[in-house]
Amino acid sequence: MRIEANLILFFWAFSIFSCLCFSVSSINFGYRFPSSAIKAEQVKLTRKSSSTNKLYKTKYFTQILDHFNFNPKSYQKFQHRYLINDTYWGGPKQNSPIFVYTGNEGDIEWFAHNTGFMFDIAPHFQALLVFIEHRFYGKSIPFGGDKDIAYSNASTLGYLTSTQALADYATLIIDLKKNLTAVDAPVVVFGGSYGGMLASWFRLKYPHVAIGALASSAPILNFENITSPYSFNNIITQDFRSESENCYKVIKGSWKKIEDTGKQSGGLELLRKSFRICKNFIDVDALASWLETAFAYTAMTDYPTPSNFLNPMPAYPVKQMCKAIDDPKSGNDTFAKLYGAASFYYNYSGTATCFNLAYSPDPHGLNMWSWQACTEMIMPTSGSNKESIFPENQWNYSRRAAGCKAFYGVHPRPNWITTEFGGHDIYRVLKRYGSNMIFFNGLRDPWSGGGVLKNISKTIVAIVAEQGAHHVDLRFATKDDPKWLRDVRQMEINIISDWISQYYHDLAHQS
Amino acid sequence: MRIEANLILFFWAFSIFSCLCFSVSSINFGYRFPSSAIKAEQVKLTRKSSSTNKLYKTKYFTQILDHFNFNPKSYQKFQHRYLINDTYWGGPKQNSPIFVYTGNEGDIEWFAHNTGFMFDIAPHFQALLVFIEHRFYGKSIPFGGDKDIAYSNASTLGYLTSTQALADYATLIIDLKKNLTAVDAPVVVFGGSYGGMLASWFRLKYPHVAIGALASSAPILNFENITSPYSFNNIITQDFRSESENCYKVIKGSWKKIEDTGKQSGGLELLRKSFRICKNFIDVDALASWLETAFAYTAMTDYPTPSNFLNPMPAYPVKQMCKAIDDPKSGNDTFAKLYGAASFYYNYSGTATCFNLAYSPDPHGLNMWSWQACTEMIMPTSGSNKESIFPENQWNYSRRAAGCKAFYGVHPRPNWITTEFGGHDIYRVLKRYGSNMIFFNGLRDPWSGGGVLKNISKTIVAIVAEQGAHHVDLRFATKDDPKWLRDVRQMEINIISDWISQYYHDLAHQS
Repeated sequence: MRIEANLILFFWAFSIFSCLCFSVSSINFGYRFPSSAIKAEQVKLTRKSSSTNKLYKTKYFTQILDHFNFNPKSYQKFQHRYLINDTYWGGPKQNSPIFVYTGNEGDIEWFAHNTGFMFDIAPHFQALLVFIEHRFYGKSIPFGGDKDIAYSNASTLGYLTSTQALADYATLIIDLKKNLTAVDAPVVVFGGSYGGMLASWFRLKYPHVAIGALASSAPILNFENITSPYSFNNIITQDFRSESENCYKVIKGSWKKIEDTGKQSGGLELLRKSFRICKNFIDVDALASWLETAFAYTAMTDYPTPSNFLNPMPAYPVKQMCKAIDDPKSGNDTFAKLYGAASFYYNYSGTATCFNLAYSPDPHGLNMWSWQACTEMIMPTSGSNKESIFPENQWNYSRRAAGCKAFYGVHPRPNWITTEFGGHDIYRVLKRYGSNMIFFNGLRDPWSGGGVLKNISKTIVAIVAEQGAHHVDLRFATKDDPKWLRDVRQMEINIISDWISQYYHDLAHQS
Repeated sequence: MRIEANLILFFWAFSIFSCLCFSVSSINFGYRFPSSAIKAEQVKLTRKSSSTNKLYKTKYFTQILDHFNFNPKSYQKFQHRYLINDTYWGGPKQNSPIFVYTGNEGDIEWFAHNTGFMFDIAPHFQALLVFIEHRFYGKSIPFGGDKDIAYSNASTLGYLTSTQALADYATLIIDLKKNLTAVDAPVVVFGGSYGGMLASWFRLKYPHVAIGALASSAPILNFENITSPYSFNNIITQDFRSESENCYKVIKGSWKKIEDTGKQSGGLELLRKSFRICKNFIDVDALASWLETAFAYTAMTDYPTPSNFLNPMPAYPVKQMCKAIDDPKSGNDTFAKLYGAASFYYNYSGTATCFNLAYSPDPHGLNMWSWQACTEMIMPTSGSNKESIFPENQWNYSRRAAGCKAFYGVHPRPNWITTEFGGHDIYRVLKRYGSNMIFFNGLRDPWSGGGVLKNISKTIVAIVAEQGAHHVDLRFATKDDPKWLRDVRQMEINIISDWISQYYHDLAHQS
């Protein structure tokens, strides 16, 4: 994405991995995706690939453009990508299960590589694995697969909605089971983050297709006055503050320092040098956004082992960042400390020589989340209160709406998600309705505030890990995983086993 | 609707009140709606109206055209009609319940007048009554309320779908509750026939909006190889045969007689005179369709008391028809007997002097069901086996598809309803999922074969009345109602009371 004033002012919103914008001196500034330092190193993938040759085969399904309309345009078709692994499948005769990942806002291969849990447990369950891409992402592009057309304006983007995606999944799964002569095989859906929201909504809306759902880090309550807009930044604040009060204070105090420095003569140049920003562009708001991204995403991916989800990161990266601030190695001023901290996020591999604020690569194809954040996905998360690690800021719906109108010519529908999927009083509503759902949340994950954190019923359960980050349970197991993480996964396996056993029992005793 | 050859050959399908076409000598012929003899006498309405002044107030809600798309066209608005009665409502402070009728394929006033049960029980529950019209029917017409535009072609009719209608209901109910400051008032949905399907699907898809559903005569299993296509006509056959073997045989033998007579010189004129057909049009297929309509609709509305739903009818009209055949009063030949029987359906008031085969009035605004029957509502019901009261006939999907393509330029999506709402293995799927649904079916109703006839779980229950016809339970109570009908309604009241009590309990003990 090129930096343009309007865009920068507008793009505060967007990935579910994002914490949305905040303001410095009441000025909104752009939120951007992980920097050019990203490398798709896929360490785990390489390891797994070498032992299984390939994680999956890639297939395409001819999908209908609009499930909910019957005008001629709705009948247009597109090629819908899914990944499939039948290495461990027991096959249709045994009614062996089918585990389906309900893809989220990016390239499905990226999610498959970061959902090792499904590969890890497939042999135990003799499960077929299917990862379905979300329409308008990756290679599942309507309008002949042409992104220039599909992304061009609201009349084509209009078909990018969660409800259409869920109907895609239902259609594809039903067709796939028919083709495999496996109509009686139980399907369990899995998803993390927005994919987890989709998994839980899929179980709610399509109980005849999936017998259960594991929804990991799914902030389905982050809508319309259900969850406080301060929750997201409060959790980030708490993550850093839990490491050290000094770390929290340095970061909290830095925003005004950056702003003041930027206003001084030569200040921008000083900032550029302090943060190793490339020479093509420097701007106080963009710099602050760049730093904020590092803190928010690190909090989100504060995993107990080294990882490469958004960027390559060490184990416990929040702790590492705070160490860099509390015990700086290259200079004792605030900017040097911050630079040291940010480097964990942007340059853990140590190969970057400068950071390009003017360029936002999108290696995982996440950009179109901005459309979803302008239509249905109105998730108020950008509030910062007085204690926040970020500058004080009120969530402002009107700003979002105005930006969306200016950029896409679209009005958000902020009440739509709760109308369609619920959310208000969910504990009461689902207490006596529905079954077979697991909501996992790690409390270090900024999104956990919008998650289901208590058991709803005997069969709709919450698993909460105090030390957990964003869908950590779905990652490949490693030998260094802490006990609590191994316990979480074992709980999930046991619950899913129970669902499947009960399904077989019901199937055998069907009258 | 004017009679035109193509249309006649095509319109075999359509209202859910219809039993679709059958063939005489393998020729399909038109199916048409109740004849010009219909009078909107609304006997019950008059009685109720006089005591309550008015049954309801009429209101309009500004509804969005397409809930599932965000292109500019989807944002168009239309005025969505609903009827409301707050005479008995206990009000928001008591969280008194709201009973909502999920309108089906016609004018909502007609359904309100034929759903007296809700009026009858409102005082007991101190319930607010709301009857919501289905989009594209009655006065709820998108595109500026202009039927000429809305009905003109597939690009406007495309928005007429069950999923959009359900989303309309959710949107309207949530908004209404907000406006009434009654967000915690429990909502129960009611519906009969297609409206019953919508009520049950609404509970399944919007459990956060409705705490329970009474789905009366809702053939949600009449799709995609779940229910036999012979079921519908077999039940009609059984209805007449249960009255007398002679009655059944006379009707069964009549179709060939009509066909043979039509081929003879002067035969058409003989048929015209025998059946008092007006002089403007006579055709063998149209006549057979006219008679078949009478038998099918009479079976459907074989109520134990006089009624005026489709047409004014006496109590137990199937019995009356068979009496007319078994003990004819005006002539002993087959045509005279049939005419006597058909007169119960077409001319019970005795005012018609001739019957117009060329004119199909649509007093209840049901015509656009033909669009729904060409897109989602592919309900195979037209099969007739060897024993059938109608000529032998196989259900033929291709014929439907070809007709729909020719007439609307649209391809049906015959698997869509089961993809979206389920249906296959419903007893297994919902055994451990969902709650608070009542499925009522009367076994004399031809549609009951596609209904839920067994309890699914403790809270998803089936009420089956051997003597019942199409949503008889929803009609106004009368002093002549048989005990079984009073019992059915009392069971329904008890169950709904339990739902509401449990809701209040949960509300009071919400953590």
